[in-house]
Amino acid sequence: FSGWFARPTTVNHGHASKSFLHDFLDEMQAENIKHHLRKLTRLPHLAGSQQNLDLAKQIRAEWMEFGLDSVELVPYDVLLSYPNKTNPNYISIVDHLGNEIFNTSLAEPVPEGYEDVTDIVPPYSAFSAKGQPEDELVYVNYGRTEDFFKLERELGINCSGKIIIARYGKIFRGNKVKNAMLVGAKGIVLFSDPADYCADGVEPYPNGWNLPGGGAQRGNVLNLNGAGDPLTPGYPAKEYTYRSSLEDAVGLPKIPVHPIGYHDAVHLLQHMGGPLPPDNWKGALNISYRIGPGFMDGLNQNKVRMNIHTNNQVTRIYNVIGWIRGAVEPGWRPRRTLIFASWDAEEFGLLGSTEWAEDHARVLQERAVAYINADSAIEGMYTLRVDCTPSLHTLVYDITKKVSSPEEGEEGMTLYQSWHKRDNSTERDAPWISKLGSGSDFEAYFIRLGIASGRARYTKNRKTERYSSYPVYHSVYETYEIVERFYDPSFRRLEAVARVRGGLIFSLADSPVLPLDCVEYAMSLTKYANSIYQLALKHPAAMEQYSVSFDSLFSAVENFTVAARDFHQRLDQLDTSNALAVRMVNDQLMYLERAFTDPLGLPGRPFYRHIIFAPSSHNKYAGESFPGIYDALFDIENAVDPQKAWDEVKRQISIAAFTVNTAAETLKPVVS
Amino acid sequence: FSGWFARPTTVNHGHASKSFLHDFLDEMQAENIKHHLRKLTRLPHLAGSQQNLDLAKQIRAEWMEFGLDSVELVPYDVLLSYPNKTNPNYISIVDHLGNEIFNTSLAEPVPEGYEDVTDIVPPYSAFSAKGQPEDELVYVNYGRTEDFFKLERELGINCSGKIIIARYGKIFRGNKVKNAMLVGAKGIVLFSDPADYCADGVEPYPNGWNLPGGGAQRGNVLNLNGAGDPLTPGYPAKEYTYRSSLEDAVGLPKIPVHPIGYHDAVHLLQHMGGPLPPDNWKGALNISYRIGPGFMDGLNQNKVRMNIHTNNQVTRIYNVIGWIRGAVEPGWRPRRTLIFASWDAEEFGLLGSTEWAEDHARVLQERAVAYINADSAIEGMYTLRVDCTPSLHTLVYDITKKVSSPEEGEEGMTLYQSWHKRDNSTERDAPWISKLGSGSDFEAYFIRLGIASGRARYTKNRKTERYSSYPVYHSVYETYEIVERFYDPSFRRLEAVARVRGGLIFSLADSPVLPLDCVEYAMSLTKYANSIYQLALKHPAAMEQYSVSFDSLFSAVENFTVAARDFHQRLDQLDTSNALAVRMVNDQLMYLERAFTDPLGLPGRPFYRHIIFAPSSHNKYAGESFPGIYDALFDIENAVDPQKAWDEVKRQISIAAFTVNTAAETLKPVVS
Repeated sequence: FSGWFARPTTVNHGHASKSFLHDFLDEMQAENIKHHLRKLTRLPHLAGSQQNLDLAKQIRAEWMEFGLDSVELVPYDVLLSYPNKTNPNYISIVDHLGNEIFNTSLAEPVPEGYEDVTDIVPPYSAFSAKGQPEDELVYVNYGRTEDFFKLERELGINCSGKIIIARYGKIFRGNKVKNAMLVGAKGIVLFSDPADYCADGVEPYPNGWNLPGGGAQRGNVLNLNGAGDPLTPGYPAKEYTYRSSLEDAVGLPKIPVHPIGYHDAVHLLQHMGGPLPPDNWKGALNISYRIGPGFMDGLNQNKVRMNIHTNNQVTRIYNVIGWIRGAVEPGWRPRRTLIFASWDAEEFGLLGSTEWAEDHARVLQERAVAYINADSAIEGMYTLRVDCTPSLHTLVYDITKKVSSPEEGEEGMTLYQSWHKRDNSTERDAPWISKLGSGSDFEAYFIRLGIASGRARYTKNRKTERYSSYPVYHSVYETYEIVERFYDPSFRRLEAVARVRGGLIFSLADSPVLPLDCVEYAMSLTKYANSIYQLALKHPAAMEQYSVSFDSLFSAVENFTVAARDFHQRLDQLDTSNALAVRMVNDQLMYLERAFTDPLGLPGRPFYRHIIFAPSSHNKYAGESFPGIYDALFDIENAVDPQKAWDEVKRQISIAAFTVNTAAETLKPVVS
Repeated sequence: FSGWFARPTTVNHGHASKSFLHDFLDEMQAENIKHHLRKLTRLPHLAGSQQNLDLAKQIRAEWMEFGLDSVELVPYDVLLSYPNKTNPNYISIVDHLGNEIFNTSLAEPVPEGYEDVTDIVPPYSAFSAKGQPEDELVYVNYGRTEDFFKLERELGINCSGKIIIARYGKIFRGNKVKNAMLVGAKGIVLFSDPADYCADGVEPYPNGWNLPGGGAQRGNVLNLNGAGDPLTPGYPAKEYTYRSSLEDAVGLPKIPVHPIGYHDAVHLLQHMGGPLPPDNWKGALNISYRIGPGFMDGLNQNKVRMNIHTNNQVTRIYNVIGWIRGAVEPGWRPRRTLIFASWDAEEFGLLGSTEWAEDHARVLQERAVAYINADSAIEGMYTLRVDCTPSLHTLVYDITKKVSSPEEGEEGMTLYQSWHKRDNSTERDAPWISKLGSGSDFEAYFIRLGIASGRARYTKNRKTERYSSYPVYHSVYETYEIVERFYDPSFRRLEAVARVRGGLIFSLADSPVLPLDCVEYAMSLTKYANSIYQLALKHPAAMEQYSVSFDSLFSAVENFTVAARDFHQRLDQLDTSNALAVRMVNDQLMYLERAFTDPLGLPGRPFYRHIIFAPSSHNKYAGESFPGIYDALFDIENAVDPQKAWDEVKRQISIAAFTVNTAAETLKPVVS
C-alpha cells in the first residue's frame, strides 16, 4: 500500500506521471504472471512450514532483484493449527457395539502431476477443538442464523448435544461453527454439496473445473472479529508479547469441526432420521436425507463419531515487507512511499497482516494513504469484480478505462466497457462495485485502522452462476493447471487484474492530489442510510412506540454531502504549485476514512472500529453498512426485552449520526 | 490550545517571532488581571445557571473585542446535580426516639461584602445519591485505600452497612466515596479537618487565609475515569445523542454523600464509640473521638442520619470557543491557529471540556499540537508550580527565563532563578516539574487524545506547608478579596503565571519548528521504568516464581532514547527554509504524544488511553506513570490468585514495552 511519507521536494506535476502510468501498465504482461504463478504454486507451503519460509526468502530475493529499496522478513509468533500427523482426523458411523462401520477419507485423491509431492496437508478445519464426540447427526442446511432459526423455531428440532452437519457456502465457515456452538451442538461436520460447488455442464477436475467428490474445503473456523493472533489481541505477537492462555484466547471454537467431500457426505446423510428437509435445503446430492435427529431412521442405534486430533501451536510466521521510498531523485520514483507486503498465515485468520497492522498502527494511522489488497486474482471467467471504499470508486473507473478488455472478441474495447456491459450497477449507469466485507488481509487496515482500501479480481457471472466461491476452493485441486487449462489460458484476465491493482497503486502513490472522491462517499452514505431506514420501517409499530427516529442520521448525511461537495469545489481551484496547500487538502483526503472509525469499536467487536462498514455478524465474507444499527435491528421482533432492544437501536443511530457529522467536519476548510 | 492548521504560506522565520514574544509577554499586566479577576468573581455562576450563561456571553463579547477572529458559545446537554431548594441537605444526630437532637448547618456564614448576594449554592456533594440512611458512624481517616485496608484488615472494623465519616485531603473526594461503596457503607460524610485546611499561625478568613470552622468544601463525587457526561460516555452530549438511563450512567455514587465544616464535624465525632484511632489519624480537632462503630460510646442508642435530597438533572451548559486563525497576513498573526476555550461545568466532572473533546476528537487527533490548561492560577505564595508532559520541559524552562520573578526583593531575578532557588528537582539541577494528574480540563486532551499538555500556577512550599490544596478551597470564602489581601496583593504572581502560560502558547503557535523535546521524554521514561521496576522488586520471590522480567521495557526505553537523540540530531541539521521538510518533522513532533495512547485504554478505564500517564486509580488528582503496571502490582501481596495477578503484571509490561517501542518508531527517519 501507499504511505504518506512526503519527502521535502518540489511538487511532481501530473504530466510526466501520466505517461509513466501508461508505461507502468504495459509493464505487466501475461507471460510474467504465468511464470510467477507457476513458480509460487509448485509446492505446498503451509504457513509455519519450512517450505513457506523458503518461499518468503525467495520473494525477498526477487523483490530485491526487481529494484525495491529494501526488503525484509518480519516474523511473528502466532497460534497456528495443524492436524496430528500420527493420528489422523476423520468421521465415522459407529454401530451399537462401538464398531466404526464407515470412515471418511483421510485425504483427497491427489491430482495428476502432484503424485510425488509430499507434505500436502489433508483437509481439516484449522483451530478445531480436539475431541471424539459421538451422537446423532442433525442437518442444518448452510448453518446460517436463519437456518438455525428455522430448524429450532419452525421445525421444532433441538440441536443441543447433537452433532451438526452443514453444507459449505453462502457464509464464512467460522460463522457456521459459531452458530452450532450457540445452539449447544457438540461437533460440526462441514461438507461441499454439488449444488454449491459444481457448475452446470462442467466436469470435475481434471477434465473440468468442478470439485471432484473426493475434494474437501480446508480453512480456519475462528471467530476472531479482527483480533489477529488469538493469544495477543490488540498487540503484535512479538517474542516479548504477553500471551493469554488457550482458555482466554479469542475466537477459538470449543467444539470439534471437520470438512468432508460430497462422496463421503452421502454416507452420513443418507441414513439420517427425522422429517424430510424443506425443499430449498435439499441441495444436489439427490438423496432422500432427512434433518434428524434419529439416526438411521430408527432402524438401529448407529451414531456418528468425530475423531479430531488437531493441535494448536504457537509458530513463527514471516511477512515479507518491501519498500520503494517516495521522492524525486535521479530517475523516476513515485511521489509517495510504497510498501509491498507478502502476508503470511492469511488462511489461519489473517494473522500476518493483522499482526503487522498492530505492530505499526501508530505510523500507519499517521501516514497511510491507501491499502490495495491482492488475494486470489481470479474466481471466474466472466468479468471484473471490485470491492472498495466509496472514495476509490472514481479512480477504479478511471483506471479500468485505461486497461484493455482481456476477453476474446473484445479487441479494442476497454476493461471498463467490457465490465460495464456485463455487470451494470442497479443504481446508476456504471459497473457494479461492491462493499468490502472481510475474509482477506485488508481487514485490519480498513476496518480497524480506517485506511482507504480496495481489492480487484476476475469473477463469475454473479447473476447466473449460483455456486459458492469457485468449485475447487481450498481443495487439493486448486492448482496452477486449473488456471492454465480453464480459467485463463492466455493469462490475459490475470494481466487485466494486475493492471487494475497496479494502476490503483500507481495513481495513489504518484498523483499530486490524492485521487480520492468524497462525493462518492456521500452518495454511498445516502444509499446506506436509506437502506437501513427501510429495514427499520419493517417495524412501524415499534418505531412509533419507542420513538425511533432516523432524522439525526439523515441530517448528518446531508451535512456530509454538502461538506464533500464544497471540498471538491475548493479542490478545483487549488494552486497545485503550492506544496503546503496541496499537503493540507491531501491530509484531509487521507484522514477521511480514519474519521469513520471509533476507538470504542462495535458492540462486542472491539477491533471492528469502522462505523460505516464491518463484516456481517452473520457472515464474515459480506460487508454490512451501518453495522451497529443493523445488528441492533437484527431479529428484533424476537427480542426478550423490546424496550432495551429499541434503546440500543437508538443508541446506534446516534453513534452513526455523530460519526458522519464528525467526518464532515474534517472536510471543512482547515481555516474557517 | 494550539492547532495544526498550517496555511499555505512561506515559512515565518524565527527572528521576528522572538521579538514578538517579548512584546507579547509585556502585554500581560497585573492591573488587567486584577480587573478581570474582580469582574469574573463578583457573582456566583454555577454551571447550568442563568448567571453562568450571562458570563459566557460576556466572555464572548470581550474576546471579540480583543480581536479574536471568531467566538461562539457551544452548548451541550449534560447531567448536572443541584441541591433541592425546598428540602435542604444536612446531617443529624438522632436519639432512640427518632428525634434530631443535632443538625449540621444548612449554609456557610457569608463573608463580609457578600451579604446581599443571592444564589450562593450551599455546600453539597454534586451527584450524591438521594437518601436518608441512618446508622452508626465509622471514622476512616482520609478514606484512602490504605486507610480502609488498615481499618478492616488491621483494626478489624467492618464498615458494611455503616455510615462513614472521612476527612478531606490527600486524595480526590470521588475516590473516598468509591472506597466507601466498595466496603459496603451506606453513606459518607466528608469534613475539613484543621490539620488539613489551616496553615500554622494563620487566622481564619477574613483576618487570614485559613478556612473558618463554618466553611465546607463543595465538589463532585463522581468516578468518571475520563468519560465526561455520565449519560453519554464516549460521545458529545448533543441534542440528538442517545442518553443512557441513570442506572447505567458512568461514575454516579450509589450512596448519599455530604460535606461539612469542622465546627459541625466536632459534634459528630466527639461522641463516637469504639477504639481510639491510630495517632496519625487524629487530625487537629484535638478531641478524643474514636473510630466506631458503637455510636456515643454505648451510652445511648443515638445514631447519625443523613438527609440528602440533591437532584441530578440534564442541563444545558455553554463552552465559549474562540479562534485566532494561523497564517501570515498583513500584520502579525501566529503561524498556527489558536483556540481559546472557556470550559463550562468543570466542577461537575470536567464536562464542558470533555464533551468538546469528544465532539471534535477526529480533527483534534489529526491537527492539535498542544493544550495549555488555565485553571486556578494561585494556590500559594511561595513559587511556581508546573505540571506538564516531558516534551514541554525545555520550553517551560526557556519561557521562565524570560519572565521576571514576582517576589519582593528579587528585582532583576528571573522567574526561573526564583523558582530554581525555591524548588530544585531532586533529580537534577533544575526546577521541579511534576507529572500531570487529573482534576482539571486538560484530562480529555492529554489522557484520552494524547495531545501534549501542561499547566502552570503559583503554589505553596510543598516541603513545609502540609495542608491540602489551599485552606478555603471550594468554600464560600474563596473570594476575590482573599487574593487581593493575602495571596497576591500586587497581582504580580498572577502576572508571572499568565506570562508562563501565554509564553508557552505563543511559542507553540509561532515557532517554525515545534518546541517539543523528545530527549526529555526519553529521560522521563527511563526514570519511570526504573521506578516501576523498583516497585516490582519489593516482591523478589514472586518475580522469580512467575518469571517476571522488565527486560522488554528497558529495551524499549533504550530504543526510544536512541531514536529521540537521533531525531534531534537530524533536527539540528534541518533546512528550515524548506516548508515540507519542516512540516515532516513537525508532524513527528506533534504525533509523538499520540503514539503513547492505546485505543483499548487501561483495564476497566476505557477513556484513559495514555499508557505512560494516567490519574492514579486511588487518587484522581495524582498522576501515575506506567499506570497499567502500577495498578497490576497494587496490593498484589494480597491477591486471591497470585498466578493470575502476576500474569496481569506481565501483560501490562508487554503493553508498555510495545507502546514505547512504537513511539520510538514514529521518531525514526520518515524515509529510511
